[in-house]
Amino acid sequence: MIYARYLKDGEERWGWIEGQKVGAVTGDPFGKHTRGGSVAELSEVALLAPCQPTKIIAVSNNFPGRAKEAGLEAPAVPQIFLKPPSAIIGPEQSIVLPPQSQQVEHEAELAVVIGQRARWVTPEDSLNYVLGFTCANDVTARDLETADRQLTRAKAFDTFCPLGPWIVTGLDPADLVIFCSVSGQVRQMTSTREMSFSIPQLVAFISSVMTLEPGDVILTGTPGGVGPLRDGDRIEIEIEGIGRLANAVKAAAV
Amino acid sequence: MIYARYLKDGEERWGWIEGQKVGAVTGDPFGKHTRGGSVAELSEVALLAPCQPTKIIAVSNNFPGRAKEAGLEAPAVPQIFLKPPSAIIGPEQSIVLPPQSQQVEHEAELAVVIGQRARWVTPEDSLNYVLGFTCANDVTARDLETADRQLTRAKAFDTFCPLGPWIVTGLDPADLVIFCSVSGQVRQMTSTREMSFSIPQLVAFISSVMTLEPGDVILTGTPGGVGPLRDGDRIEIEIEGIGRLANAVKAAAV
Repeated sequence: MIYARYLKDGEERWGWIEGQKVGAVTGDPFGKHTRGGSVAELSEVALLAPCQPTKIIAVSNNFPGRAKEAGLEAPAVPQIFLKPPSAIIGPEQSIVLPPQSQQVEHEAELAVVIGQRARWVTPEDSLNYVLGFTCANDVTARDLETADRQLTRAKAFDTFCPLGPWIVTGLDPADLVIFCSVSGQVRQMTSTREMSFSIPQLVAFISSVMTLEPGDVILTGTPGGVGPLRDGDRIEIEIEGIGRLANAVKAAAV
Repeated sequence: MIYARYLKDGEERWGWIEGQKVGAVTGDPFGKHTRGGSVAELSEVALLAPCQPTKIIAVSNNFPGRAKEAGLEAPAVPQIFLKPPSAIIGPEQSIVLPPQSQQVEHEAELAVVIGQRARWVTPEDSLNYVLGFTCANDVTARDLETADRQLTRAKAFDTFCPLGPWIVTGLDPADLVIFCSVSGQVRQMTSTREMSFSIPQLVAFISSVMTLEPGDVILTGTPGGVGPLRDGDRIEIEIEGIGRLANAVKAAAV
């Protein structure tokens, strides 16, 4: 099943996707909902970020390839940080390069969308609390990451969390290739099986710290190959079994 | 004017406070609202955390006294991190010591509550975007802060963000004493005039990174004197012109 959020007649709606068809969903996938008939062609609607999280938890240094590239040692436990909901944009919205940074980079990641409230769940049970998966870009101002003691500012600018294009349910996240290209040039291509901590381990770990709410999002770390985003670029992040998240990149109007 | 959120007849409501009286507010203080008559004595209602932020931005290392205590140099720009909304508790709710930490500490702080959407505001103009101020406790698992590369896990446990008791408007935040006692022992007592970055500077800086939404909260840093919280403690944080936020401390039921 594929759930999407889209804009039609100025209204934000939940829907299902099948091939090129968009259908109606009454209610939302986190609670009681019913599936209606087809309402539009995919090309006729503007997709929105597929959920509205109360928090976005991100994991750093979760791929040995990226750790090597960044000169970091493998961590003993997952290293988490938060991105603000104000950073979220949807498919085809523009990533805006802030004037404070001269080095903005992409980080293609598999995103977990929580389906029901989770606290102290076990790795074995954790996927039962997951609604599904989508693509994410953990956009990062690399120069500010280096300048600050914490990652937060570098990761928190408006538009620095593209999410989409939709949520795919019933997917096994253990071995999915994450692919990223920038203006046609391949930058990242690594399977989730390379992760230091698996998706079930990450959900369980984070739920041992904080209560996860329906719609909350976990960005599960980026593989090696991160690189610069420049004014005029187009970035595409594609994950096996999910689909492609595409965004333009533009300089801030100053 | 003092705005509070409280529970009455199982319903969460906005109200005003005057002395020992609680009055009705129709609507909410971020939009059109009207002030009604007195509805209860303060002792008859349970106060809730005074707002429901979409994000909580916290500032580390903003008092020279605390920087010295922590062995940190004064930062060139404000150092920000995020706490999740799931960490919020209200007055008289219990801070729960998580089993993962052996060293949980209090950090008494002045909290700014944003009143209207703010992006790229100047320090001179920034207080116009602030609804008011409340007390906060940036509870921290100090041992996990040391163990992790990022502050996030140490700061993100459920119950690690007590807020309250209410929001005071029209207050000049430039010189307010922040006071904290634990089980009757004075721990922190320093004026906001000691801050490295002032409240207007912090609001402006953060708004240059991310859009601040009505109800969002900024924790503006803790002065020196942080110390342990133990099962059975009672912590009181009092800020001049605002009031007192009190919480019990208890071990997690394992």
